[in-house]
Parts: sequence; structure tokens; C-alpha cells
Amino acid sequence: MNSDGLKALLEQVKSGDLPVQRALDTLKDLPYADLGYAMVDHHRALRSGHPETIFSQGKTVAQIVGIARRLLEKDANIMATRAEPPVYEALKTIGDRVEYHETARIVVMNRLPVTPTRTTILVMCAGTSDIPVAEEAAVTAEVMGNRVDRLTDVGVAGIHRLLANREKIQAASVLVVVAGMDGALPSVAAGLTDKPVIAVPTSIGYGASFGGLAALLTMLNSCANGVTVVNIDNGYGAGYAASTINRIANRQADDR
Amino acid sequence: MNSDGLKALLEQVKSGDLPVQRALDTLKDLPYADLGYAMVDHHRALRSGHPETIFSQGKTVAQIVGIARRLLEKDANIMATRAEPPVYEALKTIGDRVEYHETARIVVMNRLPVTPTRTTILVMCAGTSDIPVAEEAAVTAEVMGNRVDRLTDVGVAGIHRLLANREKIQAASVLVVVAGMDGALPSVAAGLTDKPVIAVPTSIGYGASFGGLAALLTMLNSCANGVTVVNIDNGYGAGYAASTINRIANRQADDR
Amino acid sequence: MNSDGLKALLEQVKSGDLPVQRALDTLKDLPYADLGYAMVDHHRALRSGHPETIFSQGKTVAQIVGIARRLLEKDANIMATRAEPPVYEALKTIGDRVEYHETARIVVMNRLPVTPTRTTILVMCAGTSDIPVAEEAAVTAEVMGNRVDRLTDVGVAGIHRLLANREKIQAASVLVVVAGMDGALPSVAAGLTDKPVIAVPTSIGYGASFGGLAALLTMLNSCANGVTVVNIDNGYGAGYAASTINRIANRQADDR
Amino acid sequence: MNSDGLKALLEQVKSGDLPVQRALDTLKDLPYADLGYAMVDHHRALRSGHPETIFSQGKTVAQIVGIARRLLEKDANIMATRAEPPVYEALKTIGDRVEYHETARIVVMNRLPVTPTRTTILVMCAGTSDIPVAEEAAVTAEVMGNRVDRLTDVGVAGIHRLLANREKIQAASVLVVVAGMDGALPSVAAGLTDKPVIAVPTSIGYGASFGGLAALLTMLNSCANGVTVVNIDNGYGAGYAASTINRIANRQADDR
Amino acid sequence: MNSDGLKALLEQVKSGDLPVQRALDTLKDLPYADLGYAMVDHHRALRSGHPETIFSQGKTVAQIVGIARRLLEKDANIMATRAEPPVYEALKTIGDRVEYHETARIVVMNRLPVTPTRTTILVMCAGTSDIPVAEEAAVTAEVMGNRVDRLTDVGVAGIHRLLANREKIQAASVLVVVAGMDGALPSVAAGLTDKPVIAVPTSIGYGASFGGLAALLTMLNSCANGVTVVNIDNGYGAGYAASTINRIANRQADDR
Amino acid sequence: MNSDGLKALLEQVKSGDLPVQRALDTLKDLPYADLGYAMVDHHRALRSGHPETIFSQGKTVAQIVGIARRLLEKDANIMATRAEPPVYEALKTIGDRVEYHETARIVVMNRLPVTPTRTTILVMCAGTSDIPVAEEAAVTAEVMGNRVDRLTDVGVAGIHRLLANREKIQAASVLVVVAGMDGALPSVAAGLTDKPVIAVPTSIGYGASFGGLAALLTMLNSCANGVTVVNIDNGYGAGYAASTINRIANRQADDR
Amino acid sequence: MNSDGLKALLEQVKSGDLPVQRALDTLKDLPYADLGYAMVDHHRALRSGHPETIFSQGKTVAQIVGIARRLLEKDANIMATRAEPPVYEALKTIGDRVEYHETARIVVMNRLPVTPTRTTILVMCAGTSDIPVAEEAAVTAEVMGNRVDRLTDVGVAGIHRLLANREKIQAASVLVVVAGMDGALPSVAAGLTDKPVIAVPTSIGYGASFGGLAALLTMLNSCANGVTVVNIDNGYGAGYAASTINRIANRQADDR
Amino acid sequence: MNSDGLKALLEQVKSGDLPVQRALDTLKDLPYADLGYAMVDHHRALRSGHPETIFSQGKTVAQIVGIARRLLEKDANIMATRAEPPVYEALKTIGDRVEYHETARIVVMNRLPVTPTRTTILVMCAGTSDIPVAEEAAVTAEVMGNRVDRLTDVGVAGIHRLLANREKIQAASVLVVVAGMDGALPSVAAGLTDKPVIAVPTSIGYGASFGGLAALLTMLNSCANGVTVVNIDNGYGAGYAASTINRIANRQADDR
Repeated sequence: MNSDGLKALLEQVKSGDLPVQRALDTLKDLPYADLGYAMVDHHRALRSGHPETIFSQGKTVAQIVGIARRLLEKDANIMATRAEPPVYEALKTIGDRVEYHETARIVVMNRLPVTPTRTTILVMCAGTSDIPVAEEAAVTAEVMGNRVDRLTDVGVAGIHRLLANREKIQAASVLVVVAGMDGALPSVAAGLTDKPVIAVPTSIGYGASFGGLAALLTMLNSCANGVTVVNIDNGYGAGYAASTINRIANRQADDR
Repeated sequence: MNSDGLKALLEQVKSGDLPVQRALDTLKDLPYADLGYAMVDHHRALRSGHPETIFSQGKTVAQIVGIARRLLEKDANIMATRAEPPVYEALKTIGDRVEYHETARIVVMNRLPVTPTRTTILVMCAGTSDIPVAEEAAVTAEVMGNRVDRLTDVGVAGIHRLLANREKIQAASVLVVVAGMDGALPSVAAGLTDKPVIAVPTSIGYGASFGGLAALLTMLNSCANGVTVVNIDNGYGAGYAASTINRIANRQADDR
Repeated sequence: MNSDGLKALLEQVKSGDLPVQRALDTLKDLPYADLGYAMVDHHRALRSGHPETIFSQGKTVAQIVGIARRLLEKDANIMATRAEPPVYEALKTIGDRVEYHETARIVVMNRLPVTPTRTTILVMCAGTSDIPVAEEAAVTAEVMGNRVDRLTDVGVAGIHRLLANREKIQAASVLVVVAGMDGALPSVAAGLTDKPVIAVPTSIGYGASFGGLAALLTMLNSCANGVTVVNIDNGYGAGYAASTINRIANRQADDR
Repeated sequence: MNSDGLKALLEQVKSGDLPVQRALDTLKDLPYADLGYAMVDHHRALRSGHPETIFSQGKTVAQIVGIARRLLEKDANIMATRAEPPVYEALKTIGDRVEYHETARIVVMNRLPVTPTRTTILVMCAGTSDIPVAEEAAVTAEVMGNRVDRLTDVGVAGIHRLLANREKIQAASVLVVVAGMDGALPSVAAGLTDKPVIAVPTSIGYGASFGGLAALLTMLNSCANGVTVVNIDNGYGAGYAASTINRIANRQADDR
Repeated sequence: MNSDGLKALLEQVKSGDLPVQRALDTLKDLPYADLGYAMVDHHRALRSGHPETIFSQGKTVAQIVGIARRLLEKDANIMATRAEPPVYEALKTIGDRVEYHETARIVVMNRLPVTPTRTTILVMCAGTSDIPVAEEAAVTAEVMGNRVDRLTDVGVAGIHRLLANREKIQAASVLVVVAGMDGALPSVAAGLTDKPVIAVPTSIGYGASFGGLAALLTMLNSCANGVTVVNIDNGYGAGYAASTINRIANRQADDR
Repeated sequence: MNSDGLKALLEQVKSGDLPVQRALDTLKDLPYADLGYAMVDHHRALRSGHPETIFSQGKTVAQIVGIARRLLEKDANIMATRAEPPVYEALKTIGDRVEYHETARIVVMNRLPVTPTRTTILVMCAGTSDIPVAEEAAVTAEVMGNRVDRLTDVGVAGIHRLLANREKIQAASVLVVVAGMDGALPSVAAGLTDKPVIAVPTSIGYGASFGGLAALLTMLNSCANGVTVVNIDNGYGAGYAASTINRIANRQADDR
Repeated sequence: MNSDGLKALLEQVKSGDLPVQRALDTLKDLPYADLGYAMVDHHRALRSGHPETIFSQGKTVAQIVGIARRLLEKDANIMATRAEPPVYEALKTIGDRVEYHETARIVVMNRLPVTPTRTTILVMCAGTSDIPVAEEAAVTAEVMGNRVDRLTDVGVAGIHRLLANREKIQAASVLVVVAGMDGALPSVAAGLTDKPVIAVPTSIGYGASFGGLAALLTMLNSCANGVTVVNIDNGYGAGYAASTINRIANRQADDR
Repeated sequence: MNSDGLKALLEQVKSGDLPVQRALDTLKDLPYADLGYAMVDHHRALRSGHPETIFSQGKTVAQIVGIARRLLEKDANIMATRAEPPVYEALKTIGDRVEYHETARIVVMNRLPVTPTRTTILVMCAGTSDIPVAEEAAVTAEVMGNRVDRLTDVGVAGIHRLLANREKIQAASVLVVVAGMDGALPSVAAGLTDKPVIAVPTSIGYGASFGGLAALLTMLNSCANGVTVVNIDNGYGAGYAASTINRIANRQADDR
């Protein structure tokens, strides 16, 4: 219930159309069920294309389909992450505009058209094996309406490949930097820009990489300014966070 | 050497004022010593008040003073973090506009006036003991020219105190959320806004908090969208990253 | 041997019916074989429906059937946890009232009828993926004779869904709160009640959740009062502990 | 604002004594500021002697005094845990009924008389060095109005000392079991009772005890039923949780 | 070369039958190739039935057969641990007295008859799931010529079952105590005997048992005297170490 | 109450000198208070010089003195480990035969004369810094009546120093091998003997030795047979365990 | 662009053949795209047979083939590590001199003949199970043009086998020492030579070897001089690093 | 005993001057006490200036002086690492050419003059706080007779400072690269050279650097070729290992 609704209720009480006791009952459950921020959620979804997201890992295909059906009723954009091909096959049967981003392992049921931002998120990664996580970030950001630029295989051991792309780096309004193994790329990349850098450690590596822990610690300890970190392999989280930042930048660009 | 300098050099070669061999010698060291991004660094400092920062921990007072002297020659704003009172006492003797933020443990030698942003960074923390880290974030952001709002003692075990401040939360363009112990605050806070949330774990806690590891892991695993994380107790890093985001928002606000 | 048995034995010694040496032999093994607490065990089982539990994980179907057979002879209620469908198929063939709780992965061979408590255990969980662990707790508690209420998908990132259920929360005499990922739910839930809260971390999550370690540490470091913790994914342990508490509450309710 | 207050407000709207707009303003901040559970908090404090607790560790004496002063205005019982003697000396100067429990390191400013429960919490510990943590639990429980029984130096390596106290163990309505080093005591103790057992690992030990981690893991992995665990050295948390359980048992005993 | 061989060589030098230079060449490689302890190894094998052991895990069947063939030439007793059935099938084809201990996963190619010791090693374990590791210890000890007694399912949560077997415990000259989960059994068992206790943590458990780490730490931190520990699941190592101790005890018993 | 006492009681019941009810009362507390193993404890102490041990670390001098006083009444040998000089100064004032082993940090109040074993425990350590732990082991074993041989500074990086002592190594009936840093010594030493080897990791090392964890893991993973391990820096535990083994060997030697 | 190219460009500017603006555009991208070290890379490859390496693990066969095709165009030696047989089968179809080193799991597409060094790298390993990692190191070094000597099954528990090979050890100019379990071999080996020792921990072991962590820590804490360490199972990295050292030694040998 | 001594002994046996039995006795202890490699040790020391090193940390000044005195008798160069000023003060009193390298915390008692190599070891470090560890490496290498070049404050976040020194980097025959925090420098540096890189993690950092663990893992997981790693803060080990490599390079240079 928003402000107008509440005012109408009070007017009814005043006019005697609504008995005090029934008004009391209505108000009792108000605080939790119908707060401002809940509406923000709703408005936000409409305005910015924020999708409803299903994290598929550890769920059965049947469960995923069930959740998707319920979301379709809410008229929302839907994204299923960590989705293997059978998930795509199943979702295809319940929606009409269903796409599968195989490398990113994302199914999109994108019902509302979105105009991409003019400002850009740059998603870069250190090695070929990091591409799936980078794609999860990139596709997430694209689904949320962002223009996304990509840069792959720019590991710090061959620093010239990274430097050769410095214009791309400086053109982006926010960077998502994905790296496994030594996780050193965000430190170097953040030194080449004054924009926010979101670092994503991947579980790529062997031996003492400990499933991405090594890269995670490297990034948390980055000696470069402006770096923040998300969970190991969490391309989705990085893409989402980058989108919240880029959309601010885009509004600025629009206003100009 | 910037573009104009390089053009001038080429003109001199063309006119014959500069022998090819001497131009060659000059260009040989160019790539590393005088690149575009280095100049960006310089311009950035002038434009946005990005300070030169000295991380005082593990350095002697003499070392800190030495570094500060060199930076003063460069005409830069200077910030010394993790600075105990003796550092302040020493720096006071070499500069004229020197302030000490005791709780934040930051000394500022702020030589260039900065106009605060109109948009706001909200720095909130869960418990009283988290305040020093929160202040490090807040003061860092202020020194970098941001308007900062503060909110303390809003731990999730007393959720009503947090909810009572939802307007403050929704008004900020970026949030820095500081918490030790269970580190649960960023998850809840991020659910109340659609703005970027930078989570800062603190080493506050006992037993199995393992020096902030518990809070760090909580934040990395946050089930809320839009949360990124910095190192344990790294208020400076959070304040810096928040500033890179808020300045984008501010330019947008200015443009309107 | 209980007090009466011992007295009878001494009477026999006194009357001369039992030679001292044979009485001595009997008494020699008494202390360990027939102590008071052992009888407590037995009485407890009869009175409260405490089941004999087989932890199926890591056992062959044949081993489980063997153990179940032996327990059936003791006329006890039997519960097999972590039981996959083949365990159910096998146990069906040796008992007559055998049920399978598939999500909870529990087989119950419940031979003695149990009247549910009037007081309630509330089992809540943060996400859909936590449901199996929550169900293990709920079914365990139900088998032990407790009335159980359930609440799912009330993660802290959408705080309004949790708050909308505050009456359910405050009505329970003990709460089992199940959460993976950031494990933040128990901290918030415990702030909404003055009843004991048993927190169950789950291994749900990815990256730096480290198989539930992140959630475990969060819960151990909870800043809310009244929270105690069980092992990762240990729904059975939580349900059992909750039952020991709820049965006290129930006796109180009965007495009123 | 409680139900009666809300009803009065609506009556005033109906009668015209309160303009709709002002009623609207009042209601707008209602949800967060004045919810049911907040009042529960207040009532709970009055009824059960739940103290306001200051965790002294990491706070200056001045900060602790400041917090205590504010709490005194609320007419609440106050407890300062992890309090070294200077804290006691300082608090003595601002209150009149101030006691110091030195081993437990707790200062109590206990303004409201509390009748102890008839049911009992048994606090036991494995070794002499665990006593401070056990006392923190015991004193916390006593301050909250519980009758507390104590048992020390009953480590499992001398099992007969533990067994000799089995009556004490079986008489308690809830057990707090404190142990460092191998942390094995709760597993054995829980086998001797059917009441809830709250296990408290301590940081006592050397080498690979890793500050209590060994004991913590032991307890989380206890093969005995009914055991839940709190953080390392968290006597306060254990005492608090035990109190929430014992007070239920006590009400039952009272009702009989 | 043993002492006699060396003496013979020197005699040949003395008699002039062996030129000094050739004696020098022979002696040059002596130190490493033919030392006393190497012979000890050989004698030890003959005297005590110490088997040559093949650790099968991570080796192909072909590799195991190859190693076994080479050992058969040396006329040694052979033991293959961690051996799955196919290893047994293959070894049966190259030897004539080949047995498979399925639970222990040990193949024995036992060519030399061994008289069991009169003194006893007691191998006990806490739960049914620990039996494979306990059997690895027991069979290893038996192959090495020890009399072995077994005790299963004596976990500390049902202390009476353990106490009921105290005579067995006190009769053994050395104990191997196997436990997973909380790993508490060795602490209790060592309190019931004054003989050496070798503790074996197993990887049995779930959640925060971390593959046996919890039990390992418990045992290393045992508050009972006389406990030493081997690696997780290392039944073989425990059986071997127990044998080195029991054989001393046996010689004592023989001498009496 | 031993077997004779129990028989006497039964005779009294038979003769009518003891009423059945009073016999019943006496027997009721028998199981726990007066069991066989408790007497074993007592006899063991008298026979073998097993001392009562006070672990001083984390106790105040006053607490240590208090415990020692109580033990003196029991006429037992007393050992205080981890004892700093002030502990020695205090204990000197309450006993008459008090010695301080400074390097081992052990105070002995040794009231009963002990004849050393003829068989030998060899305590060896890798580096100079490991000596305090080695001495704790050696003095513990000596106090318990063992002949102890010592070998220091025989790290594996200078293998010839170790090999030069092979006779000493092979003469011992049990070895205690102490090492920090890489902890490799027990693996090599165990290859030079067929006697039990008790490995003691020390916290000596830097960087990634992690307070002895590196050495501990090395020893647990030793590829040599017959090695068991105690806690980090636990010289006392190693000396005690070695004594339980050596005394068996000694009885054997005595019997010859 | 090398020095000559730059000079030519400047000459063109001087002569007026190249407008200043176009020279400016050319130079703008110079620093990163065409630096000295990039050329070093190229020369190095030609001179020393440094191969281009594809890390196959985590890549599909199709991806590997794609990368190999691109490298073949560059006329480089190619090595695919961690390559299972299907990778070999696929690469055979696109090249003509393709070999598969099965134990090392390396496919070599070695297009340029390489003369082996006269100096030697010794690759030794502790156990049979370490051979695959040792072979990865050995084959890597051979492909890079080194003479390689091998030594297997020289674990420290049988020190005589290691010592018997001391001449081989002292003849090598650099050692690669591979060991799992306790990882003690490098410490002993480094004591037998004054040459650099590269230690490679393997994931071989069980229980608390934690996937090679135990061996890694042992090696990092080696008490022997001259030892450096690579990642767990990283035979490739060790072979590569050994080659960089041995080629220096070889040039020395060549020069003599 | 060297080859000549052994020959003399055999000659004496041949001539009859030495009875066979006495020769036998002499030879019996030969293998371990006087082996070839021991002499290598001695010769090496004379030839290359390899110092005897005392690791001072954890030793008393008296112990250090005692060890130094004994080494002085052997006429060796002596180095005391991790030496605080009092160690220097004490050692000055027992030697005549004693120097203190304060930043490196190394005392050198350098009795034999050493000619520096012509080839160079480059010791570089990322931040000011890493200098003490870098100096430990540099001084160690210098004491061992190497020419050492230094480069400080070249962290990867300001990549241009590193690149500006590429000539220095490519001129060195071996690199020691020291870094704390994110430990990313070795990965970048190794990409700029084809020489061996020895990486040294430091304990510099805060929060989740975990005492250098983060940097250690980064370096072990370096994606650059030719990188090997030593223990955290182990400047001495890195300097020593670099020296073993550089001396090979130097001999090559000498030979040219």
C-alpha cells in the first residue's frame, strides 16, 4: 500500500465508510507486507530490465521449470544461470523468446525489449579457461541492458598484449576483470584506469590454487586502488554489480 | 611526453632542427617513461582531488616524513592512513594545513580545496567496534571530495534500527557497509537499495571469527545482488572505490 | 539391574540361597552393564518416541538392513537418514509400516503411535536449495513427536518476506534456521524472537562458500543472542536438539 | 505504538480531531520505529530480567562508561562481559549496586531483583583452565535469573570422575559443557542425559589446537544427539542460550 | 659388504693378492651401497615377518603386478593395501598362497609361516563406518605376526558399551583406536589403560569433519596421556606401529 | 572397593551383620566411585613412578601452588611442565626435593626414588632451536624412570651427521624425534631402525611453517613405517608415550 | 618496430615523404605493440627451442586443436601438457611430427631440431606414484633441448638408495626433485649437492596430505640451502625453470 | 678421510705396518663420518665464499656468540641473519672484521676476501615495506660473492615504473623478485625476461593477506614461466639460491 492508498483509507475512516476495527486489521499487517522498498523492487524491474534470476546449480530441471512458470506470471525478464543444456530444452517448451548462451551457461527468457546503454562495461579475462566465467558476467550485464565490450587472453605474463588494449580499457565506465591461477590481472588493469574495477577470481588453476582461493586472496590484497571483489567464479554477481554502476554512468551520458 | 610534445619533435625532425639520431635517442625511452596513462594520472589528481596515499603501518615515522616531503614537492594532496599520533606530530612540522582524524587514524595534508559532491556515499556499520574502519572509509571518501553520510550500530540482530533508516539508505548513490562478527549486514542492506554496495569485513569478533575471515566469507557469499567486497579492515580501499563510483553519479547530478 | 533386582540379590545372599562367590561374580560386571542411565535410555525411548537412528551414508544397503533387523527386535521406532531410494525399497521388505520422506531422504519404520506436541518447532530456510536439509530437520522432529511449522525462501536479501511471517516466528517455542551461502538468516531471525534458535549451515553455495564453511562461521559469529549451531547440513542433529527443547515446552503447555 | 494507540489514532481521525494528513505523517514512520517485536523486547526485559549487555573487549573504559550511562537511563539490568578490573573501577563510580565477578570477567549492575528458577542449568568444564569461560556462562545465566550448578575438572581421560556425578548431570534441565584441547567432553556428557547440551569450545590447548579450532570441530562433529555449539570461548552466548531453554523448563515446573 | 667381507678384502691387500688401487676403487662406493642398516633390513624381514608392502592406490593393476613379481624374487612376504578386487584377481595369477581381506582391502601373498604373538593388540573403533580402517590395521598387524583382538561400535556417546569391555582393554599390550566424526574415543580409551594408544582418525563424518581433519585435531589434542597419532585413514601405519611395540611385549612374555 | 572388600561386604550381609538396605546404599555408588581401573591408576603410580603432572601454561602461580599442595597430600611425584622460573621459586617454598630443568621448563617435586630402566629412549632433534621441546620429552621420560640418550643438531640437510650416529639410533628401544621447519627428520630416522618412532613437530620455523603445521603435516605423511605423531611442541606427550613403550622393553630386558 | 624501422620513419619525416600527422599516428601505438621485449620473445624462441605450450586441462579437444593450428602458423615448436590420448589423436591429424609421451601426458609437435645440452638436469622422484609428475618435468626439459637424467624410487625412508646415487646427483648442473606424501626428499638431496634444487610437491598421499599441501609446506620450509619450489604437480614449471638454469650452465660448458 | 688418506691406510695394511683388525676398526666408521660430499662442502666453502650461517631468530645472544666462536675456529666466513642490534654488539667483541647490515638485519664476519662476479643478480621489490626482505636477499648474495643490482617500489599497479627499468631486468642473469600484498610482481617480471626468477613472498599486507599466505599462493600459481618460490620472508634462501645460479653464469662469463 502506497501513500495514496493509505490516505484513501484514512479518508474512509473519517467519513465513517470504514469502521475503525477493520481499518485497524488492515493496518496491522501493513508494515511488512507492503513497504516502500518492495515497491521500489517492482518499479526497478520495470524501469531497468533487472531480471529475475534462477541459480540452476543444485536444482532439478523440474524445480527450475516450476520457478520459471511462477515468474512468467509476474511478467518479468527471467535468467537462469549455471544452466546446462537440458535446462534450456525444458525452458524452451514453456516460453517463446528463449535463448541459450552456451559458454556463459545462461538461459534468457527476455520478454521486455531493453535499449543498451551508450556507456560500456569492459569484461576482460586473463586466460582462455576463464572465458566461461567472463561470459557469465558479460551476458548478465547485457541482459540487464548494458553495452559490453570483451577482451580475452591478456594475462600479465605477456604484459604487452594488455597494454596494446589500453584505449579499450580507458574507454569503459566500469571494468570486470576475470582471472584464475595467480589472479594478478586486476592489480595491473586497475593501474591503467581511474574507473571502478570488479575483480572475479576463477577456480581455474592447479595444485595450490585451491579451487580459486589463491586468485581470491590475490585480488583482496590488490595493491591497486578501486578494486572490489566478488566470489570465486561469480560472473553473475560481477555482471550485476557492474550494471548498477554502469547505469549511473549511462544516465550521466544520456543527460549530456 | 604528450601528443603535442611528440608532434613538436616530429616537426623539428622535419625542419631539420633535430638530427634523426637524437630524435631516435629521445624516442627510445619514450614508451615506458612518458605514456598516456601516466599523464592521465597527473590530470586525474588535479581534477578530482585524488590524493597521494601513504600506508603508514610498518613504516617508521622517519620513512613517512621522507615520503611526505617528496610528495609535497609534487604539489599533491597527501593522506597518511593507519597513522598513529606520532605520525601526525611529525607531519605537522613539515606542512601547514595538516589535520588528524583520530578515529580513522588518518592524517590529511590537504593542499587543494575540493568541492564536495552533491550525491552521497552512505557509510554504515554494524557495531560500535566497527567504527574505526568505517571512519577510515568515510574520511578517505571525504578527502577525495565526496559528501558522506554515516549510520552506526545498525546490526541485523535488531533489524528495526536498520529499517528505521531506510530513507537514508535509499538516498545514497553508493553504500559502504562495514561489519565484523557474522558480517551479515551487507546482505540485508543490499536488499534495501538498488545501488552498488561495497562490503568491508572487519577483524572485530572473537573465537572462530579468525581475524575477520568469517565476516569476509559471509560477504563474498552474500545472497544479495550488487555486493562487492574489499579486504578485511580495508576502510581506505572501500572509501576509494566508493568515490570512483560516486563521482560518476555526481557528474550525472551536475549535468542535470 | 535396577535397585529392586539388587535388593533381591542381597536378600538371597542373606538367606543363604545364593553363595557369596556367585553373588560376587554377578556384581563384578554390574557397574558397566546395567547402570541407571542405560535404563533411562530404555525408558526414554518408550516414553518419548525417541527413535533409533541409522545414518545410511557410507553404509551398504545390506548393512542398513542388517542393523534395522536387529533394531526391530528391540521393538523400537527406527529412522534411516541420508537414505537413497534403494534403502527404502529394501527396508519395505522387512517391515510393515515403512514410509519414505524423499526430500528429507529419511525412511521411517514407525511402529509406535506418537501424539504430536501442542507447542511448535518452526523450521525455516533461506533458499530453495536449503529445503532438503530443512526437511531432514522437520521430519526428524515430527518422527520424535513434535508439531512442526515450515517457512521457506525467506532469505535476508528480501527482508520483507521474513518480516511478513513474524507471527509464525513468535509463535514457535524453538526455531531451526537453515541457511547456506552467507548464512545470515539466523542472526536476523534470532532478533525477532526470545526463543532458542538452532542454526544449521548448509553446503549450498559456490566459490568461497567452501562446502558450507562460510555459513558455519557466520552462524558461530552471530551477533544475535540465543543462537547455537550444529554441523554443516546436519538437519537431523538440529531436529533432534529442537525436539529435546520443544518437549520441555510441551510439558509446560500440557500442565497448564 | 501498540494496538490501542493505533486504535485511538483512528478514532481521532474518525471524530475529525486529527486531520488525515497528520495521521498520514504519523503512520508513515510507524512500520520500522514501533513494531510489535520491539515492544516484545521491552516486555521481555521487564519480565525475565534479560540484561542489556556490553561486550567490553576492544572498547575503551570511557566508551564502556558512556554506553552504561545511556543504559542506566532505560532502567535496565546491565552486564559488562570481558571486563578487566579498570572497567569495574569505572562503573562503580556511576552506579550503586555494582558487582565484579573476577574469574568470569563480568561486571553486573543489577538494579532489578530476580527470583532464581527452581530448575537448574548445569555448567561443567573439562579442565581448570576452562573455568573462566565456564564462569562467564554460569554468571550470565545467574544474572538472567537461573539457578546454576557447577562441575569442574571432569575431563574424559578420567571418565570415573564424570560418571561419579551422573546424578547432577541428570538433574539439570539443560547443560553447558565447556572444554578445550580435544573438546571431547560434550560427546560423553550428552550420552548421559536426554536434555539439551550446549557445547562451548575454549581456546585452551597448545600446538594444533589452533586457538580452539580443534575443540570447535570436535563438538560440531559430536556423535551424540542433542548437542549444539557456540563460538570459541563464548561463555556468554552459551549462558544466554541455556537461559532461554531453562526458563521454559522453569515455567513448566512452576505450573506443576 | 659386511664385516667379514671387508676383513677378507684387507687380508687380500695385506697378502698382495689385491692391488691397493683396486681395493681403493672397491671401498670408494662402499659407504652407500652396502651399509649395516641395509643388512638389518634384510635380517629384520626374515626374523619378524615384516612384509614388503605395495600401496595400491593410484597405481594401475599392471604396475602392482610388476612390483609384486620383483618382490617375489626376493622371497619376501607381500602385502598390497588399498587393493580393490581386480588387484586380487591379478595377483592370484602370479602367486600360490594369495588371500584377499575384502573389508580391509588388503591382498596378502604370505609365503613364510608366522607364529602369532601371545601378547595382544586391541583394535577398536567407534562406529560401523570406521570398520574398514580398523580392519586395515588389524590385518596388517596379523600379517606381521601379531595376535589381534577387535572391538567395534564403542563410541563415547554410549559410554557403557565401552566400559563393559574394560577387561579386553586392559588385557592388550597396545591399543589401536580408530574413530571418525568427533574422534573422541582415544581420549576416553587411553584413560582406561596404561598401555600405548595409537589413534587413527578416519575420514568418516559429514559437514565440518573436513575429510577427517576434525578427528585428527581431536586426537592430536587428546588430554589423555600415552596417545600418539597417525595419518587420517592410515590403518596400515597404525597396525605397523602397533606391531613394533607388541613384538617387544611379546619377547618379554616369551622370556617369562 | 576391590574384590576382597566386596566379598567381605557380602559375607556381612550373609551373616546378618549388615542390613540389606545399608548394603544396598553402599553398592549404589560403587560403580563409578571405586572401579577397578581407578585402583589400577593408584597401583600404577606407586609401581612405575608415573608422576602427577601440572600443565602450567595459562595458570597463575597461585593456582599451580594450590594444585601442587593437594597433590603432595596424595604422596605423589609431581611434575610442572611449561613452568617459568617464578613457578619454580614458588614450588620450592612448599616442598623439599624440588628441581628445575630450565631448558625443559619443568619443575620436578620427585619424592619417590626411581631406578632408571636399562633400556634406552633416544631423544633426537634436528636443530638447536628444537632443544627445549626435546628436553621436555627427555626430562619427562627421565622423571618417569627411563634411561634417556640425547642427540642434537642432526638435520637431514647434513645427512652425514645423522648417519654417523646410527649405532646410537639402533641401540634405543624407542625413539623420540623432534623437528621444526620441514619436519623431515623422523622419516629418515625411522628408516634407520625397526623400533617405534614418536615424532614431535615443533613450532620452530618461519613464513609458511604456520606455527609448526608444516612439520606436523610432514610427519603425519611420513613415508617411513613405524612413525606416530604427537601435537606440536608436545615434548611432554612424546616423553610420556615413549615411557609406556620403553618400560615394556625394560621388563623384557629385566626378565632376561 | 625495431630501431631500424623507427630510424627509417624519422628519415621519411625529415624528407617530407611522411606527413607529421601520420607519423604521429604511427608512433602513438608504438609503445605497447612493438616493444623490445616482444622481439626478445621471438628471438628467444628461435634460438633456444622454447616451445609454445598449451595447458590442455579444462579445455575441449576442439579448443586445443584450434590453438595448435594458430601456433603452427607461427612456425613454433608446440607442446600440449596434461594431454589425454584423445588430444594426441586429434593433434596427429593436423601436424606431421607429433609424438605422445604417455606417462608425462605431453604431446609434442616438435618442428625444429634441437641439439641437447652437454650439461645435465637430474630429475629424481621419491616414489613410483610421483613418476608422472617427474616425467612431465623431464619431457618438458628435453623438448626445450636439455639432456636429462632420471632417478626414481629414492625416498628418504630408505636413505641408502639415495646415497648410492650420489655421483649422479653431483654430476647434474640443476636438480628437479619430485615428492609427495612427506615431501622430505628435496631437503636431503639439497644437502648432497651445491647446485640449484627445484622442488616439486605432488598430490600423491592420503589423509592429511591435503592434495599435496603437506609436501608443499615441507619443501617451502626446507632447512637445506638452494631449494626453490613450484606449484603442486607442476612438473612443467619445474622442467621449464630447470631449463633456464641448465642452458646457462651449458653455454659455460660450450665455451670451455 | 679423503682418497689419499684411504690409499695410505691400504698401503700400511699391505706393508704390514697396520694390522688388519685396526684397519677394519678405522674403516667401520668411515662411511658416515668422512664421506666425499663432506669434503665437497669444505672445498666449496674455500672456493666460493659460501658462508656458515646462523639463523638468529629464537636464539639468545649467548647462544649465537657460542656458535660463532666455534665457527671462527673453522676459519669460515660467518653470517648471522635475523640479527637485531644486540647480536651485532656482541659479535663485534669476538671478531675483528664485523659489519652490520641494519635493514637486512645481517651481521657479517667476513674473514676471506671475495671477488664479486661480473654477472649480476637483480633484486627487485614491489613496495617500500618489502625492502628489509629484499635487502636480506641482496646482502646474502653479496656476502656469497655476487654482484647485486637493486630495484625498489616497482609494484604492478604502476606498471610504467617497472617497464621503465626493462634494461636492468634483461641485463641480470637471475632475478630475485620480492613482493607482499597481492604478490603479483613476479608474474609480470618473469614475462619481461628469459632468465630464472626466484619469487619471495613477504608477510607485508593486512586483512586477508594472512601473514604472506596470499602472496605465497599467488607466486606458486604464477602464470609466467621460469618462476620458482621460496618461503615467506625468506630473503636469505632466495639470495642463496640465486647465488648458486649466478655463479654458474659467472663462470660462463669468465670463460669467454
